[in-house]
Amino acid sequence: MKTHDARFRVRYAETDQMGVVYYANYLVWMEVGRVEYCRSLGFNYRDMEKEDGIGLAVAEANCRYLFPARYDEEIVVKTGVSEAGPRMIQFSYQIENAANGKTLASGFTKHVFVGPDMRPCKLPPKYRARFGIK
Amino acid sequence: MKTHDARFRVRYAETDQMGVVYYANYLVWMEVGRVEYCRSLGFNYRDMEKEDGIGLAVAEANCRYLFPARYDEEIVVKTGVSEAGPRMIQFSYQIENAANGKTLASGFTKHVFVGPDMRPCKLPPKYRARFGIK
Amino acid sequence: MKTHDARFRVRYAETDQMGVVYYANYLVWMEVGRVEYCRSLGFNYRDMEKEDGIGLAVAEANCRYLFPARYDEEIVVKTGVSEAGPRMIQFSYQIENAANGKTLASGFTKHVFVGPDMRPCKLPPKYRARFGIK
Amino acid sequence: MKTHDARFRVRYAETDQMGVVYYANYLVWMEVGRVEYCRSLGFNYRDMEKEDGIGLAVAEANCRYLFPARYDEEIVVKTGVSEAGPRMIQFSYQIENAANGKTLASGFTKHVFVGPDMRPCKLPPKYRARFGIK
Repeated sequence: MKTHDARFRVRYAETDQMGVVYYANYLVWMEVGRVEYCRSLGFNYRDMEKEDGIGLAVAEANCRYLFPARYDEEIVVKTGVSEAGPRMIQFSYQIENAANGKTLASGFTKHVFVGPDMRPCKLPPKYRARFGIK
Repeated sequence: MKTHDARFRVRYAETDQMGVVYYANYLVWMEVGRVEYCRSLGFNYRDMEKEDGIGLAVAEANCRYLFPARYDEEIVVKTGVSEAGPRMIQFSYQIENAANGKTLASGFTKHVFVGPDMRPCKLPPKYRARFGIK
Repeated sequence: MKTHDARFRVRYAETDQMGVVYYANYLVWMEVGRVEYCRSLGFNYRDMEKEDGIGLAVAEANCRYLFPARYDEEIVVKTGVSEAGPRMIQFSYQIENAANGKTLASGFTKHVFVGPDMRPCKLPPKYRARFGIK
Repeated sequence: MKTHDARFRVRYAETDQMGVVYYANYLVWMEVGRVEYCRSLGFNYRDMEKEDGIGLAVAEANCRYLFPARYDEEIVVKTGVSEAGPRMIQFSYQIENAANGKTLASGFTKHVFVGPDMRPCKLPPKYRARFGIK
């Protein structure tokens, strides 16, 4: 599985009073990984949404938390496509501490392609090859 | 100045590692207060946006922080309109701890009315009376 | 399975440019459901954390998204405990539109009890009965 | 006034249903700018908090919004210290679109130094020179 790395630092806003990153923020990081993955394939999620009216509605999200991420740590999100068809796509993520390579969390998100009316649709052919969809 | 109270509890997600509510979240609370204020005037911000395409673009926001809000405390946001004209409106807020009445923060937000193209516009007459605008 | 309802309205801050609630926010809502569930059992998560230094570290979170939640809708989060032992607990959630009872999403979170050092520990006996743990 | 640039892209999570960045997120960006500014001065906000127990409690925040920031745009936050003394510090920010240099927003945050008990204190001498405080 081809993967792509997105890197950024943990923001203070992302911590909670337990002194670690609040669990919902890992899903935000998955989104950052997903967007950068698309960009690495040579297209831009924003343009797909804007020009073709195609969105990726989330159908399921899952995250397993192994070690807490902490403020100001540099994070790497390794993103790949673990499954894809004309109507759906699944991304997989590994979230690591960049300094020591420790895996902090892993997970996946499943998406269905939707049109401007938010109803499921098939991904236009021009985008399929990029995701390895026939 | 007529005011309206919005009440809710501090969420864990809203805290940071200092053990208090992260400062940007007070602006989210102001939004909650603003929306409830409009509802108390007998109309719904959502409908104004949806049916008339009128939005309230924020032009300025200010918050003074006096005492930290903490997880699970019940909060009251007292919202009023401190200034209003056909093209702009200013809301004022007092954020209190509901249990002891202590003022935690106060602030204001200035807004301009915008149309569906995000350009400034005049508030349609039918909404003006509600805000006391002539 | 005993469940408890938490109710609140969708905040503007919780929407994204697709016009629906951003997917990570459902995990914030699960936290709101979890806290209210504990309160309905007669104890307070904040006090457990503060007085006994016991936290609930998230080990896994899962959410299936059926229909999008939209701004200003009233939401009900039905929370229950689907599994529990001295070292871990699993909460299940059903997230509904309060006006029409439609299920918008469902999911679960698994937690391990941790001490002040963030290391796994056993839940103190005084809290076990509340969760139906022997 | 010496300034430092922090750069990042707008996240999908940061947008709202108006199709632009939600206003509270500019305060999160100011925090990112503030932290990177401190790093550029050769010290780390995290260490100051962890090793010396010194925090920067926010006393006031202000933001003027000129043009909306949109999803996936690259943002630059230019941060400087506009005022500083042994007990307080004020940071100023200019938030720009990196691609065209347009100023999107500007603002400031005022902070008081606080000790581990969250009470105001004087900044330890070793940090003062870095901020140009005598």
